[in-house]
Amino acid sequence: MIEFPKPTVEQYFTSYNIGDFSVSPDGEKLFFSTNLNGKENIWAMDTADRYPYLFAEKNEATNFVKFDPDGRFVLAGFDKDGDENYQIYAIGPNGGVPQPLITGGPDEKYYFASLSEDGKRIYYNTSKDNESFLNSKVYNLETDEHELLFEGDDAATYIADISSDEKNIAYLKMYANTYILGMIQTEAGYEYVTPDRDNVHTVGDIHFINKDEVWFATNYESEYAYLAKYNLTDQEFSKVMDFGDESVTSVIFNKETNKLYIVTEKGVGDKLYYYDLNTQTSDEISIPFESIDQYVTSRSGDLFVLAGSAVSPVNIWRYDGDSWIQLTKNQVLGVTGDDMVDPETVKYESYDGLEIEALLFRAKEENSNGYTIFWPHGGPQAAERKFYRAMFQMLLNRGYNIFCPNFRGSTGYGASFVKMVEQDWGEGPRLDNVEGIRWLFDQGISSPEKLFLVGGSYGGYMALLLHGRHPEYFKAVVDIFGVSDLFTFYNSVPEHWKPIMERWVGDPERDIEKFTEDSPTTYLETMTKPMLVIQGAKDPRVVKEESDQIVKKLRNAGRTVEYLVLEDEGHGFSKKENEIKVYETMLEFLEKHQ
Amino acid sequence: MIEFPKPTVEQYFTSYNIGDFSVSPDGEKLFFSTNLNGKENIWAMDTADRYPYLFAEKNEATNFVKFDPDGRFVLAGFDKDGDENYQIYAIGPNGGVPQPLITGGPDEKYYFASLSEDGKRIYYNTSKDNESFLNSKVYNLETDEHELLFEGDDAATYIADISSDEKNIAYLKMYANTYILGMIQTEAGYEYVTPDRDNVHTVGDIHFINKDEVWFATNYESEYAYLAKYNLTDQEFSKVMDFGDESVTSVIFNKETNKLYIVTEKGVGDKLYYYDLNTQTSDEISIPFESIDQYVTSRSGDLFVLAGSAVSPVNIWRYDGDSWIQLTKNQVLGVTGDDMVDPETVKYESYDGLEIEALLFRAKEENSNGYTIFWPHGGPQAAERKFYRAMFQMLLNRGYNIFCPNFRGSTGYGASFVKMVEQDWGEGPRLDNVEGIRWLFDQGISSPEKLFLVGGSYGGYMALLLHGRHPEYFKAVVDIFGVSDLFTFYNSVPEHWKPIMERWVGDPERDIEKFTEDSPTTYLETMTKPMLVIQGAKDPRVVKEESDQIVKKLRNAGRTVEYLVLEDEGHGFSKKENEIKVYETMLEFLEKHQ
Repeated sequence: MIEFPKPTVEQYFTSYNIGDFSVSPDGEKLFFSTNLNGKENIWAMDTADRYPYLFAEKNEATNFVKFDPDGRFVLAGFDKDGDENYQIYAIGPNGGVPQPLITGGPDEKYYFASLSEDGKRIYYNTSKDNESFLNSKVYNLETDEHELLFEGDDAATYIADISSDEKNIAYLKMYANTYILGMIQTEAGYEYVTPDRDNVHTVGDIHFINKDEVWFATNYESEYAYLAKYNLTDQEFSKVMDFGDESVTSVIFNKETNKLYIVTEKGVGDKLYYYDLNTQTSDEISIPFESIDQYVTSRSGDLFVLAGSAVSPVNIWRYDGDSWIQLTKNQVLGVTGDDMVDPETVKYESYDGLEIEALLFRAKEENSNGYTIFWPHGGPQAAERKFYRAMFQMLLNRGYNIFCPNFRGSTGYGASFVKMVEQDWGEGPRLDNVEGIRWLFDQGISSPEKLFLVGGSYGGYMALLLHGRHPEYFKAVVDIFGVSDLFTFYNSVPEHWKPIMERWVGDPERDIEKFTEDSPTTYLETMTKPMLVIQGAKDPRVVKEESDQIVKKLRNAGRTVEYLVLEDEGHGFSKKENEIKVYETMLEFLEKHQ
Repeated sequence: MIEFPKPTVEQYFTSYNIGDFSVSPDGEKLFFSTNLNGKENIWAMDTADRYPYLFAEKNEATNFVKFDPDGRFVLAGFDKDGDENYQIYAIGPNGGVPQPLITGGPDEKYYFASLSEDGKRIYYNTSKDNESFLNSKVYNLETDEHELLFEGDDAATYIADISSDEKNIAYLKMYANTYILGMIQTEAGYEYVTPDRDNVHTVGDIHFINKDEVWFATNYESEYAYLAKYNLTDQEFSKVMDFGDESVTSVIFNKETNKLYIVTEKGVGDKLYYYDLNTQTSDEISIPFESIDQYVTSRSGDLFVLAGSAVSPVNIWRYDGDSWIQLTKNQVLGVTGDDMVDPETVKYESYDGLEIEALLFRAKEENSNGYTIFWPHGGPQAAERKFYRAMFQMLLNRGYNIFCPNFRGSTGYGASFVKMVEQDWGEGPRLDNVEGIRWLFDQGISSPEKLFLVGGSYGGYMALLLHGRHPEYFKAVVDIFGVSDLFTFYNSVPEHWKPIMERWVGDPERDIEKFTEDSPTTYLETMTKPMLVIQGAKDPRVVKEESDQIVKKLRNAGRTVEYLVLEDEGHGFSKKENEIKVYETMLEFLEKHQ
C-alpha cells in the first residue's frame, strides 16, 4: 500500500501564530490576531460554531483587541511593519477595515489601557508630548475630548486599572524590569500600594476589587511574587497568598463572579489558580498545556486561555469550570506530537556554584545529524520555557539538538537571580553560557566540531559576544537582531526605555570600561567563524544599525558574513513569507557550515 | 459615538474560494480546497468542532479530494500554475506534503475516476498514449500495476462508475457538450445506456444501483434532462422521473441509504431533490442557497453541499434530513447581505423573437455612479446564474450596474437553446447581446456614454467581437482571456478538446468564411475604444497567444491597450494576490475611462 515519508522540515513552517485575543462579554464571540492568511490580521469566531472568519484587515501586528461591552465596536491597536508604534483603531461590529480612532504621527505611540464599563471612555497612554515617561489620558467618545490624567515624570507610567466609578486610577511606574511601583490616583492625591517605594521590587496587574481595594501581584520583600492587596480606606498593604517558590506573573479579575485567576511561573513552566473572593478559597486549575500567553474571562465566568507547550503550537482554550475545550486548531501540517521533541529539563553548576536550569531538546535518533545548537535566550530578563518555537521543532526535524540555558538574569528563579544580569550583561551570564557549553561537552552531547551558536535579541548579543570571546567552541554563528555594541545600543532604544537603561545595562560614561569589555564589537579580531546575521529593518528595540555595523566591520576584515535584512519587519517576524525566508536561510547556512 | 463608513471596495477582495471537497465515510472529517492562506491548498475540518486546519500544502489548484474508506490515505489531484494537467497524489491520514502516486510528464493528465470499495484500486483516465481520446485504466495499490481497461477511440472517454464487484464499468463518451453517450463495459462486451447512439443527446452521472442496473441523467428525446435507468439483464432503457422544464444537471447515489440526490437547473437557479429507491418516492429538499457547486453524502446519509448565491460566497453546508447547518463561514470582510446586491431576473425579446433571460444587478442608490457593465458570460454553453462573484459585488459597491444576458447557447433553457451557439459563435449570440444592450438603453438604464463591456473566456471573445462590430455602444472594454481568432483558437485548445471542436465551433477549412466573419481579429479597424486585456500565462484553454496577438495588432495600430499577464495562472485566478491585482487593475481602468 502507500507509504508516506516522515514529516519534512518545510512542514514545520506551516503553524500559524495566534497573538492577542479578546472575548465578547457573553463569551459568544472570540477575536484573535493571527497570520492565518499570511499577514497578521484579526479574525473572529462564533464560539458556538468555531469556524474563523476575517474580522479586520490591516496586515499589521496587533497589540490588543477589545470588544465594546454593548457590541457597538471593537477596538484594536496596530503598528506599522513591526515598528511597535501602536495606535488605536476602531472596527464596526460586523468587522471591516480598522478606522483611526486615537492616532497621531508615525513615531507616536498610543497604548490602550481600559474601556469604561459603559464603553464610552477609553483610557490610554501616549508618548505624545512625553516620549520618555508617557502621559495617561482618557478619550470621551461622546464629546470627542481627550483629558490628561497623569503626566509621567520619573518613570514610564502606565494605567493599570480604573475603579468602576472611574474616580480612582491605578498606575504602574516602571523604573526597571525589576523595579515597578503601583500607585493609586484618587481625588485626595496619590498613594502607593506597597509600603516602601525605595525598596526595589515589582508590582503588577493591579485590579480594583471594589472602589477602595486593589489586589495585585508583587514581590515586595520576597524572592517570588505573591498575591497582595491594598486598602485605600485603611491605607493598608497586606499579603493575601503566596505560592512558595512559584512567582505570580499575572492576575485577572472577573467582577461578575468575584473571582481572580492567577498564573504563576516556576522555571520553565506555568501554573494556573483561581481565588474566589466570595469564599476566600483558592485552588489550582489543572491545565492541558505548559505555558500561558494570555487569558481572559467572560461575564459567565468561563475562562479563555491562549496557551501551548514545547510540542504544541499556541491555541485558544475554553474552560467552563470543569473541563477544557480547544477552540482553535493551530497545528503543524501533518505533524502529530510524536513527530515533535519534548525537551528535558537539566541542571548544571556554573563557575561560581550557581545552579543553572536548561532545556535540552535531543533530536530523534532517526533524524539526528550529530550537531547541537546552543541557544542563549533573549530578554535577558526572560527565560527559555516550554512554549512552542516553530524554529526549534524544524531544526530538531533536520537533526540538530538544541540546548537552552536559563543563565543568570533569567526569570522564573527568583528576584535576586533576575537582577544578576543588571549592569552585568557580558560577564556572569556569559560564563553561565560557557559552563553550559562545557557541560554539553562533558556529557558527550556535543564538541567544538559539532556545535553551532544561534541567538536572537539579547541572545543575539550573547551569540556575538561568545563568538568573539570563545570562537574555539563553535562551527558557525547565527545572530538574529542582536546588540553588537552597548554604547550605540544605549542611545538607540525607544525613548520610553531610556529611564530604565541605567539600572538595566549601566551608564556608558561611568561604566565605560565595563561597556567596552561587554560589547561584542570589542572582539572583532577573534570573530573568525562563519556568521549569518538576520535583522528586521524596522526593529525599534535593536535597531538595524546594530547589525549593519558589525556586518560591515567583519566584512571589511574579510570574514564570511551573510546578512539577511527583512524590510517590513521589526523585532520578530510576523509575516509568514518572511518567517519562512528566515528558516530557509538559517537551514541552508547551518548545512553549509557542518 | 464612533461612526463607521460603508464597506469599501477592498473589502470585497477578501472572500475565499472553496473548491472541491470530500467527506470521510463517517461524516466526521471534511476536506476542502481553499485559498484561505493565499494559495489553493487542502484544509481539513473535524465536523464536530469545525475549526479548519491545513491538511495538504502544494500551493496548487485541486481537481478532486478523495478519502480512503479505511482512512489510510487521502487522494487529491493537482495541476501546475493553472495548466490543468492534473495528476494524482496521495497524502497520509494526518495530512502532509502530497506524494506523487499516478503522475507523469508535465504535459500529461491523470484524472481520478473512482476508488474501489476496499480502497485498493484506483480507476483513472489519462492522456498518456492517447491525448485526444484518453485511456481508462486501473492502478492496483498492492501490486503497483496499471491495467488498461479501455482505449478511447472516437471520443474523449471518461470512467463514470464501477459496479461494486468491479466487473462492470460505466463510461461517458464525449462527442460535444451536447452529445455525450453512456456506455457499459461488461465481461460480455459493450452496451449503450440510451437506445439510439445517433440521436444527439447527453448522458451524465451514471451510477450502478446494483450490478445490473445503472441510473443516470439524460435528455434523450427531450429538451430537459431527466432521471433514467438502464437494466443490463433486460437491456432496457426507461425514464424514471422528469422534472418538467427543470433539467437534471447531476445525480449522486448513496449505497448505504439506497437514495439518490438530484440537482436540477432552471434558468438562473438550482433545485435539490431526493429519490428513495426503497420506497420509490421522491421529493424536493428546500435549500438555503441558490446555486449548488458540488454535493456528496456520507454513509450515515447526511448530505454535504458546496453552495452559495449571488449575495453569499460559496460555503459547505450539512443536511441531516431535517435541517441545514453551515459548516464553513467564508464571507466578505465586514459585509453583510444588506451590503450586497441581489440581481433581478429580467426577460427581453431578441432580434428573431427568441426570449432571452438576463440578470440585472442594480447598484444601490447611495453607491451608484451611473455606469453599467455589460457582461457576456463564458462557456458559451454555460450560463450566468445566481452564484457569488466577488468581482460583481465589488463593482456594484463602486457604483456600477451589471447586466448579464443568457444569450442563445446558454444552459438552463433546454437542449435546443444550448445547441444554437454550435457552429455559430458570432452571429446569433452576438445579436442577442446587441438586443440586450438596446433593451438597457430603452429602459433608460444605460446609454452609449455610460456603458462598459467586460467578459471572460467566451465572454472575452464576445467582448472583443462586440467591440469590433459595435464600438459605438461602449466607453471601454475589458477582455479576460478571450478568444481573439477562431482559426488560431481551433488549433490551440487541449488535445482532448479537439474531437468536439467541429460540432462546437465548426471546421476552419469548410467554414472559412464563417470563421473569418466571427473572429474578432477581422474587426481590428473598428476596435477604437480603450481596452484592458487580462491573461493567465499558463491558460491551456485560451492560450496566451490569443491575447498576445490582438494586443500587439491593436498597439501597432496606435490604440490604447493595457495588458496584464499573470505568470502563474491559467484559465482563472486561484491565487489571492493575483485575484486582487486583477480587481485593482480593472477598477482603475474603468475609473480612468469614465
